[in-house]
Amino acid sequence: MPYPEEAQGFMIDSPETWLSFQKRHYKLKPFEDYDVDVKVEACGICGSDVHTISGWGANQNWPLCIGHEIVGTAIKVGPKVTNVKVGQRVGVGAQVFSCGECKQCKNDNETYCPKIIMNTYGSKWPETGIISQGGYSSHVRAHEHWVFTIPEKLKTNSVAPMLCAGITAFSPLVRNGAGPSKKVGIVGMGGIGHFGIMFAKALGAETWAISRTRAKEADARKIGADGFIATCEEGWEKEHEFSFDLIVNCANSSKNFDLSKYLSMMDVHGRWVSVGLPEEEGQVIKAQNLISNGVLIGASHLGSRKEMIRMLNLAADKGLDSWVETIDINEENLKEAMQRMKKADIRYRFTLTGYDKAFPEA
Amino acid sequence: MPYPEEAQGFMIDSPETWLSFQKRHYKLKPFEDYDVDVKVEACGICGSDVHTISGWGANQNWPLCIGHEIVGTAIKVGPKVTNVKVGQRVGVGAQVFSCGECKQCKNDNETYCPKIIMNTYGSKWPETGIISQGGYSSHVRAHEHWVFTIPEKLKTNSVAPMLCAGITAFSPLVRNGAGPSKKVGIVGMGGIGHFGIMFAKALGAETWAISRTRAKEADARKIGADGFIATCEEGWEKEHEFSFDLIVNCANSSKNFDLSKYLSMMDVHGRWVSVGLPEEEGQVIKAQNLISNGVLIGASHLGSRKEMIRMLNLAADKGLDSWVETIDINEENLKEAMQRMKKADIRYRFTLTGYDKAFPEA
Repeated sequence: MPYPEEAQGFMIDSPETWLSFQKRHYKLKPFEDYDVDVKVEACGICGSDVHTISGWGANQNWPLCIGHEIVGTAIKVGPKVTNVKVGQRVGVGAQVFSCGECKQCKNDNETYCPKIIMNTYGSKWPETGIISQGGYSSHVRAHEHWVFTIPEKLKTNSVAPMLCAGITAFSPLVRNGAGPSKKVGIVGMGGIGHFGIMFAKALGAETWAISRTRAKEADARKIGADGFIATCEEGWEKEHEFSFDLIVNCANSSKNFDLSKYLSMMDVHGRWVSVGLPEEEGQVIKAQNLISNGVLIGASHLGSRKEMIRMLNLAADKGLDSWVETIDINEENLKEAMQRMKKADIRYRFTLTGYDKAFPEA
Repeated sequence: MPYPEEAQGFMIDSPETWLSFQKRHYKLKPFEDYDVDVKVEACGICGSDVHTISGWGANQNWPLCIGHEIVGTAIKVGPKVTNVKVGQRVGVGAQVFSCGECKQCKNDNETYCPKIIMNTYGSKWPETGIISQGGYSSHVRAHEHWVFTIPEKLKTNSVAPMLCAGITAFSPLVRNGAGPSKKVGIVGMGGIGHFGIMFAKALGAETWAISRTRAKEADARKIGADGFIATCEEGWEKEHEFSFDLIVNCANSSKNFDLSKYLSMMDVHGRWVSVGLPEEEGQVIKAQNLISNGVLIGASHLGSRKEMIRMLNLAADKGLDSWVETIDINEENLKEAMQRMKKADIRYRFTLTGYDKAFPEA
């Protein structure tokens, strides 16, 4: 069946066949008063896309069409929608619904809603049991709260990854005071980290990139880093002791990670906020490791609608541009892209394009 | 030699003989312009006293006279001292010096000074190499910044434990916003925890005591707890999900401690601050455990001079009274008290008294 009952997308059947994308039709949730239908034109490839189909996938609802850094055109809006008009260029990130009524939702913490979090893909819509499906597809349907008009100045292909990677970096920066007179570090110069550097600098903070080697130093400085720390160098942490107000940890691995050295760089009551979700076991933390500077350790999950709008406007105002490699969406390219993502062989994000060729009937 | 060159105190020679207190004379640091000499009249027994002589002691400077919840009379003040007058009743807590000049010291974070932290006992004075000694003794000598006049309304024996246990609980409460309309939990109803409950309530927070069993519920409610959670009861965390703004963890053991259940009770970006220093290995923390509510995990170390004064005034204004058991200072009683501390057989703090009998020549 064609749209509007169904969408067509590239699906994975199980973690065992995580490189085997199958183009299929699947059912969309019933269209409701606050829904917006987006005809997809581009979609970033997120690290969690790869984790979901290859690593975290055991409890997923298979088969699954991943993708949650979506840009396209609003082609249909429900009668109660006020945020979006038909024909507008819009983005959809990693979440498409929350209860909207609880304390968290009313307090701009809708990505922490304890009642219901509908991820863009892989979640079960409560009333129908239909599984949400992502943006490696012809269409997505989302509640208007989770659909964002894109400022004219931003390019479709480079704004796509901001919808998840970008907001993931941006929210902890603004929630933890990144700005003038603050010293901010970004650990891990990958998809999320490169946004972290860009946004920390754009917000006015003294911005340090923290990476294992100096291989990405030139890139980091181009993006806006004021300084660069290579953790392969002996004594790297020494000159920064008690100095960082905030470090956003965007690393996607905690292997060989000596957390205590990183924490020793924090100012008193500085904050270490992780946004990566490594597949490895966690870190052993003793109160003793935290007590010399009273550092706070936390994690952050996406960002609110308000933050998303603020981020997009900041990017437009400052002319910020993601570093993306575009690749047309099809079975072979998806396989290759997933393999390169696994090896972190990308500077710094893939954006899937060529949707008109993949879905000519959409 | 007698005072003022020396003090007399009960010393421990090594962790192997941690119950064998020896009354001896030892050298005091040279008296300087900002110093205050305190003739000791009472001293609380802190959990870290016991840890130091029995557990943490490997790197200590032996022999050692412990004790850092000291109340006594100022009997001599240096020519530059302005905070204290001879004859005043004063307290000394767990620290007696910091550099006083760095960013942290100037910013009311002197207990996090990265240059020098002189603990009340066991630290080496930089210029002379003399080891600082605590309050199980006739006299202590401290920089005036670390000497606090005691409000008249407070009783010597019950104010003593506030100087370490009290401020340890008080500082994270005020630094993390405990007050009206906040829900605050205190884990561990021991020496520090009983102050946590008392102060959280006095600051105006909705205050919950969190303990393994209900054995101490009646005490907790007398001290000011509005509610009580017993973690031996199935599903104890369920009704509190996403609700605590702050939990101060005063537990001195992390055995069988399911941190994720505690963290599930935190509101979005709520804070879990540990002040106990368990001897066991730490907790394994994965970003995944923190992400559902963006909780922040931290630790806290004592409190600033300003906070100490605020705490003492609050206690005087509200008529707060520690729960102490007094015991005269001598070899046998110290041995017994240490053994009971190890078993947590005390509600909720010992205060050593009878100094005139132990040190008749002082």
